[in-house]
Amino acid sequence: MTGDRAGDYRILHEAALRDHLAGLPDIAALLGGEPASWEITEVGDGNLNLVFIMKGASGGVAVKQALPYVRLVGESWPLPLSRAHYEYLALSRQAQIAPGLVPALLHHNEALALTVMELLEPHIIMRKGLVAGTQYPGFVGDITTFMARTLFFTSDLALSAAEKKEGIAAFAGNHALCKITEDLIFTDPYRIAEQNRWTAPYLNALAASLRDDMELHVAISRLKLKFMASPEALLHGDLHTGSIMVTDHQTRVIDPEFAFYGPMGFDVGAVIANLVMAYFASAGHERATGERAAFEAWVLETVEKVWSEFARKFLDLWRAEGTGDAYPVSLFAGAQGAARLEAERQAYLHRLFADTVGFAAAKTIRRIFGLAHNIDFELIEHPKKRAVSEARAVRLARAMMVETGTFRTIADVTGAARKLRDWRPELTG
Amino acid sequence: MTGDRAGDYRILHEAALRDHLAGLPDIAALLGGEPASWEITEVGDGNLNLVFIMKGASGGVAVKQALPYVRLVGESWPLPLSRAHYEYLALSRQAQIAPGLVPALLHHNEALALTVMELLEPHIIMRKGLVAGTQYPGFVGDITTFMARTLFFTSDLALSAAEKKEGIAAFAGNHALCKITEDLIFTDPYRIAEQNRWTAPYLNALAASLRDDMELHVAISRLKLKFMASPEALLHGDLHTGSIMVTDHQTRVIDPEFAFYGPMGFDVGAVIANLVMAYFASAGHERATGERAAFEAWVLETVEKVWSEFARKFLDLWRAEGTGDAYPVSLFAGAQGAARLEAERQAYLHRLFADTVGFAAAKTIRRIFGLAHNIDFELIEHPKKRAVSEARAVRLARAMMVETGTFRTIADVTGAARKLRDWRPELTG
Repeated sequence: MTGDRAGDYRILHEAALRDHLAGLPDIAALLGGEPASWEITEVGDGNLNLVFIMKGASGGVAVKQALPYVRLVGESWPLPLSRAHYEYLALSRQAQIAPGLVPALLHHNEALALTVMELLEPHIIMRKGLVAGTQYPGFVGDITTFMARTLFFTSDLALSAAEKKEGIAAFAGNHALCKITEDLIFTDPYRIAEQNRWTAPYLNALAASLRDDMELHVAISRLKLKFMASPEALLHGDLHTGSIMVTDHQTRVIDPEFAFYGPMGFDVGAVIANLVMAYFASAGHERATGERAAFEAWVLETVEKVWSEFARKFLDLWRAEGTGDAYPVSLFAGAQGAARLEAERQAYLHRLFADTVGFAAAKTIRRIFGLAHNIDFELIEHPKKRAVSEARAVRLARAMMVETGTFRTIADVTGAARKLRDWRPELTG
Repeated sequence: MTGDRAGDYRILHEAALRDHLAGLPDIAALLGGEPASWEITEVGDGNLNLVFIMKGASGGVAVKQALPYVRLVGESWPLPLSRAHYEYLALSRQAQIAPGLVPALLHHNEALALTVMELLEPHIIMRKGLVAGTQYPGFVGDITTFMARTLFFTSDLALSAAEKKEGIAAFAGNHALCKITEDLIFTDPYRIAEQNRWTAPYLNALAASLRDDMELHVAISRLKLKFMASPEALLHGDLHTGSIMVTDHQTRVIDPEFAFYGPMGFDVGAVIANLVMAYFASAGHERATGERAAFEAWVLETVEKVWSEFARKFLDLWRAEGTGDAYPVSLFAGAQGAARLEAERQAYLHRLFADTVGFAAAKTIRRIFGLAHNIDFELIEHPKKRAVSEARAVRLARAMMVETGTFRTIADVTGAARKLRDWRPELTG
């Protein structure tokens, strides 16, 4: 893990990248054979970076290099290279506390904003699998372990206040990435903004109604303030199903370049929102009525278990390893103290559930009216069919954001989703 | 404002201090005359530092030097010198945004942990004046301007998220001072701790009841977590009446070495708690029944105005200068948007009031059962009389912490205090 002098940044196109890796003995050995024989493929389909797969005679690696701008938009939208270093810091931390659930780190060069990682094969981006209607039986166990451990062990429940403040300071410089979230998730979808787009004309009236919905604007602004000023734990910061690679039995969380100390519900809500969107998109991918019913049932069951297993694991960690400066056990001695602390743990999780519901709603609306959409909806070929699926998701999200308190359990969320499965929205045009 | 090399720290006793200031032309000129003629007096009565007044032929200055340990306890309790630099950073920021309400900074030497400031004359520590029964007509206006401006202009309501995160990071290293607060205010008074003390034997039973009161332990733990993980604004961090110097018409806030980004209610609650303690202590300072009635009425009226004027000024700043990333005005266009945003401002202040009530309670209990007491109570000569005043304050504080929601307005706080003015507590022994 070396860092060259700042100012040495250059984009490593294929030959230069080959030379760079050839100069790293461990990686050259892992790839095997002559560097000239290594096969390079550019595979990045994300919004921000270059991603290459490099394969040699004996093995392969994934290489990610940050560009000094947003790839999705171009050089007109600059973005600091330092995000690659924050991603590396986050991956390192996640590897410690959630081992086996992130790709192994092989090399990081801070000046080049370049990281070499284990090649994940035959994993695919989970979102692609969900579009195809694939069920992932190992997913719930893995993602809830990942979230419970990364969130708990970086929180005040596990750390001293000094360690926590050091962590917050270490990631404070990643504010340009936070700003993307603040603008694209918490602001732009609710006002006229050049980069917004939606399935027109069908959702025109719905888009306009969101821009005029002051209850929604208050709710999204409260969530934005929470996002900015509630450093509860080190978040992944972009934990959608495009940041998760899966096989039937393995799960790896990738791409934590949005990492920072924020509210836990933002990560948990991201997972739930993206599953709920996969559920609503599913109807748009049917070729025959009901052919995806088993998949859809699995998705909603997964939503329920994501919350319940996360909550169970988080609580177990707190009970067993709650040695942070918050809720010191010395104040809860005896049977009565233990019972009162346990009740407080439940209250903490109840509050975290409400945050999760709100953030899940925010993550949904941005995918339908903001800049960055997702293939769950985008690959529904017929725009009107797509708009129907999107409108159902928005109806649920609006309720989750404005009437958060009426969703008391995760079954309230899945129950509401199920009721909207065949709801016919009024569309424009 | 120069900083020598780290490692150059030494305690500047009187001759060395004289030499140091003689080497600073601006300060030497301000003092006037020969350095040998300057009069030096050690005046520090705080818990942590050395404080000198240096007077020359034409003027005087105050000099504060941090010791590498807690002065109140001794070398067995080390404390980082860096706190002097955080104090300097905070004073500089406060001077910008609340001009005229902090002492002017004349010199800062980071390596020596030494700051030279304007000599405040004829100001006295406000707490001493309150013990004497003095009313300060200028206080409410000044302290509410100080709090409204320092809290608003360092919050997400005024700053971009990037500026806010930079501020949080700049003060994150001051965690040793935060830890003092976390231990001495939010933990130790509620458990057996070597450094606790109280007016024994009279408050023995009350001290024991607090250690067994699990509702109180939940409430103080929630406040502690909020203190640790809610960086709403740059706090003074120790805003009691011993950190305020006054004349009849001037107010200066001093000693912000506990500064960090925390919950606004902690500063507002500190002011209110210390006034409420002055109110309950007043009965103990009477030589004739009722002789301090006018003072006591002024104190409670001041408590009410501290909140109401703070809230009014804070709201006015938000309306006029709310250009931060939180609650973007672009989401609240039109008459309906403006009305909804105004309602949300009121809700924000209502939530801040609840925090204030809780933190005020925490600040009260620590002064009666923790390490650091205050002269409001300590100077009540007869221990039993002192215990009576203290028990009244604790009764109110316990209600404010556990039943925070029942205090809906500041008049609920002052009304409850008034009812307890002549309450006869049961004492031990």
